[in-house]
Amino acid sequence: MSSKTIEWKNGRVVMIDQRKLPLKESYVECDDYLSVAEAIKAMVIRGAPAIGVAAAMGIALGGQRIESRKFSDFFQQLEEICEVMKQTRPTAVNLFWAIERMKRLCWNNREADINILKELLRKEALKIFEEDEQINRQIGINGRELIKDGDTILTHCNAGILATADYGTALGVIRAAYEQGKRVEVYADETRPLLQGARLTTWELMKIGIPVTLITDNMAAYFMAEGKIKLAIVGADRIAGNGDTANKIGTYGVAVLAQYHQIPFYVAAPNSTFDLSLKSGDEILIEERGSEEITQFCGQQIAPEGVRVRNPAFDVTPGQLITAIITEKGIARPPYIKSLRELLEG
Amino acid sequence: MSSKTIEWKNGRVVMIDQRKLPLKESYVECDDYLSVAEAIKAMVIRGAPAIGVAAAMGIALGGQRIESRKFSDFFQQLEEICEVMKQTRPTAVNLFWAIERMKRLCWNNREADINILKELLRKEALKIFEEDEQINRQIGINGRELIKDGDTILTHCNAGILATADYGTALGVIRAAYEQGKRVEVYADETRPLLQGARLTTWELMKIGIPVTLITDNMAAYFMAEGKIKLAIVGADRIAGNGDTANKIGTYGVAVLAQYHQIPFYVAAPNSTFDLSLKSGDEILIEERGSEEITQFCGQQIAPEGVRVRNPAFDVTPGQLITAIITEKGIARPPYIKSLRELLEG
Repeated sequence: MSSKTIEWKNGRVVMIDQRKLPLKESYVECDDYLSVAEAIKAMVIRGAPAIGVAAAMGIALGGQRIESRKFSDFFQQLEEICEVMKQTRPTAVNLFWAIERMKRLCWNNREADINILKELLRKEALKIFEEDEQINRQIGINGRELIKDGDTILTHCNAGILATADYGTALGVIRAAYEQGKRVEVYADETRPLLQGARLTTWELMKIGIPVTLITDNMAAYFMAEGKIKLAIVGADRIAGNGDTANKIGTYGVAVLAQYHQIPFYVAAPNSTFDLSLKSGDEILIEERGSEEITQFCGQQIAPEGVRVRNPAFDVTPGQLITAIITEKGIARPPYIKSLRELLEG
Repeated sequence: MSSKTIEWKNGRVVMIDQRKLPLKESYVECDDYLSVAEAIKAMVIRGAPAIGVAAAMGIALGGQRIESRKFSDFFQQLEEICEVMKQTRPTAVNLFWAIERMKRLCWNNREADINILKELLRKEALKIFEEDEQINRQIGINGRELIKDGDTILTHCNAGILATADYGTALGVIRAAYEQGKRVEVYADETRPLLQGARLTTWELMKIGIPVTLITDNMAAYFMAEGKIKLAIVGADRIAGNGDTANKIGTYGVAVLAQYHQIPFYVAAPNSTFDLSLKSGDEILIEERGSEEITQFCGQQIAPEGVRVRNPAFDVTPGQLITAIITEKGIARPPYIKSLRELLEG
């Protein structure tokens, strides 16, 4: 794919506008950190790893514009920028992970000249970007053995190139199997309300050349019962110490259906998506978004005016419904309370 | 609700155009049976009982225009009309039930004068219409005891006034509980692809005054896990002898989720929805509809051009996932192979 999810280009942060895909390949160019924050909030860019990269680039961009020459002032202003970034979206932990990493880098270089510090921030953001692609390729290599030649795979939302710096997590695993020469086929849930599956996953897979069939979210059970789906694989926004996984709304339902039909259900995510400080998914804050995402479509009202709506953007899948979690360090299996610490901290 | 789902009016069959609701209350007036068949096919009218009524009215309308004075010719032409009606939609058995009833009435009155026969056909269609409302009210009375004061109820698709002559089946049960003075609240799945939940169920319930919250299909599991949903109730398009139930795509998934969360899952349907000649749901033909229902939204393309799509309009929920089936004759419980025959043929 020639179009990049996000790029640092001529002192700006440039993102493909994912709200417009697949109809229009347009780009949002951010001149300052506030526009980056706004883009994350408005879901110009989405997907936990991509949000992390965007936050890092936003902070680096904000850092370039700080005029103070004194570290304490510089750091205080950088912290304010970080606060704005933190307020964009609450669920994906990669955001907070990237913010902390940028802040720590700044603090660790508190003796450096401010201009050098600005350059270090920019380089760190680019490093986060580059690492993310490498990590995803490694997740793909680790996970591809779970996919057999001829498998049809269900995925929910988009955990592909567009959700990351490049290559993707869940779609990266599928792609790695495909690049090994395995014949694979994907069923993509459309993923209401914002249709990341219908708009983004199909688009990516068609570009790569992996056969993809679009279905509505409520068809997953039908195709599982038909014996069509051999496994399900999704990305993640935050994974607690016991393996409980926050991901796009609808993921939990897919996991329950997979268990009922005895189909393996896998999660693929980088280290930066884990929040081992949380004992369970109960502690994960679930973002509730505006009702117009459900009542309107392309600006057109579809439901009665004034109807009450609930719109949680994520749900939590309990670790016990997850067959395995694929990371760049390897594959963790239940009980996660033990395996995740061994894998990630070992 | 002042607006009727379907009406015989001045020698025409008039239907509210359900494709346009809730934004526009417009009506389709059918002058001949072909327009009625077209309206069923295009889902101007939908919902198994309503389709049955529409088919009967369409046949009656077609009968009025037959010019032959000889019974054998008249009957042959009526059979041709019935064939056209049969080709409209394959899954809801009420369609075939109504067609058979109209044909039988005609045959049973083969000695009558053709003009009288025409009048008998018209009256039979109106009788099917009126009976349907009475049946639904009785289903409501039978089912309301399953709903407790304060319950929040999940429903999928629309099994309300708009799916029937009046009152509704699944929504009729909820309404009967509400009319008893029970405080009830409904969570309505939006029901992709055609959004009958978002457009029709919310609209009906808001008119009646029953509190309703709109959610996307993939949120049902989230609210079940939260303990919000106390029971689920849906309509049906065809019920086999063992209780296997064909209903709008997504119903089966809701039933699996309900079982996992130990929430009762009920089906409400009239006698005419049962097809006891079928041993199991495997024998039910599932309609597959056009891909544009999924790839387009309000005429606007949302998915990549040329993407492969599957669009089964129904699924089959196995009887063992259904807590009880509510009919006008009473409530059947598993094992359905026994209870349904006792209830419906006893």
